[in-house]
Amino acid sequence: MNLKIADLPTRAPEDLDKNSAKEETKNMIKEIIERQRILYAQKKYSMLVIFQGLDASGKDGVARKVFGPLNQNGCTVKYFKKPTEKEFAHDFLWRVHDAVPEKGQIKIFNRSHYEDILVPSVYGYIDAETINKRYEHINNFERLLLDNNTLMLKFFLNVSYDEQEVRLKERIDLAHKHWKHGDGDWETRKHWDEFMKVYERIFEKCSNPVPWHMVPSDQNWYKAYYVAKETLKMLKELPLKWPELETELFK
Amino acid sequence: MNLKIADLPTRAPEDLDKNSAKEETKNMIKEIIERQRILYAQKKYSMLVIFQGLDASGKDGVARKVFGPLNQNGCTVKYFKKPTEKEFAHDFLWRVHDAVPEKGQIKIFNRSHYEDILVPSVYGYIDAETINKRYEHINNFERLLLDNNTLMLKFFLNVSYDEQEVRLKERIDLAHKHWKHGDGDWETRKHWDEFMKVYERIFEKCSNPVPWHMVPSDQNWYKAYYVAKETLKMLKELPLKWPELETELFK
Repeated sequence: MNLKIADLPTRAPEDLDKNSAKEETKNMIKEIIERQRILYAQKKYSMLVIFQGLDASGKDGVARKVFGPLNQNGCTVKYFKKPTEKEFAHDFLWRVHDAVPEKGQIKIFNRSHYEDILVPSVYGYIDAETINKRYEHINNFERLLLDNNTLMLKFFLNVSYDEQEVRLKERIDLAHKHWKHGDGDWETRKHWDEFMKVYERIFEKCSNPVPWHMVPSDQNWYKAYYVAKETLKMLKELPLKWPELETELFK
Repeated sequence: MNLKIADLPTRAPEDLDKNSAKEETKNMIKEIIERQRILYAQKKYSMLVIFQGLDASGKDGVARKVFGPLNQNGCTVKYFKKPTEKEFAHDFLWRVHDAVPEKGQIKIFNRSHYEDILVPSVYGYIDAETINKRYEHINNFERLLLDNNTLMLKFFLNVSYDEQEVRLKERIDLAHKHWKHGDGDWETRKHWDEFMKVYERIFEKCSNPVPWHMVPSDQNWYKAYYVAKETLKMLKELPLKWPELETELFK
């Protein structure tokens, strides 16, 4: 695979009308809500949705938009930040495995085990051999989840270099976005090309068993549309079924 | 591999003197204690010791004998019993992964993920294909731990059919062993041959990357000798090293 992220679109297809797409997104979310109700009751399947993308690519926003309206008792977000000392004393998948959804649940990963490839690769603090093994461990781990009836969606939020700058600057200019600003984001931005190279390698090595979706992410409405569409599609393929009545009394 | 458990010894070699073996066990445990002190301080390696064996094969006893004298802040036992509802709603390795030792720690597994092969295989409540995948998931999982500097020892406590009966009867005859008695153990004993067949398959499919040790287990003194010897041997192969002094004050 010779995929170049720079060649991928970061904006919606020209022929897609924004207003009708937003309307469709609303309807799709309603359908997702309905299906989640059964998933939750049936306790046979679970769903894991992974969002990866650079700072300001909109991971938070799209998760809130598409999954926020669901029954939150059955849908939660896990943020992967810098590992704690205890997490760091275990293998890199330890904290990730702990957070996977149980049957009936939808779990959103804001960042994920892929950070354990990205960050050490770009900053070079883990040797190449160890990183290479991680690709394999990740594939094995995802296969384990699949074999346990976990549906998986992996979204790469592809924001353009220019749009990222606009968004990072907003965090400086707008009072209600100051809290999102971190000087570190500008530092990370300097490594843009390196991050893209590692992402390309991730897509090459970790698309089997679970493929990646490359989401054009410069426009929030299209990102939500895309994610809702793929999520609904996957839920529709499931044989979801309301459980039978279980009773000893009314037989 | 055509290993037959029935062909393996359940007693010590004839030429081993019991008293000198017991003396040697004591000395080996002292050495293990010394090495654990460094392992604990160095926080670079961890150790996972798995005990598998039928009821009354002496898993508790040998763990207490060999590992009880260690610094218990760095050595703990995890018992795997019937999964809770929450555990059961996850993949079978979820609760196992949660319990693996962090760097600096020794963890004893009394039973383990191998029960998730044994019990469903014998009682047939999971299909063969799913069980077959579990073998592979286990190998992948153990490889992940190895790659994270976890030493692993897997002991199968090989007790004979006759000796098991003696020990199960003791639990009926001796007041201080009543608490260990469970009618279920006699039920399990009826499936002896089936359990052995599954164990043979486990040894065939799950000896790489981590080999099994078949411990002749009819005599407790020999079991402890064997386990102490293998444990010490593995610790001796490690480049254990007291950490350097870290100070900003006394430089």
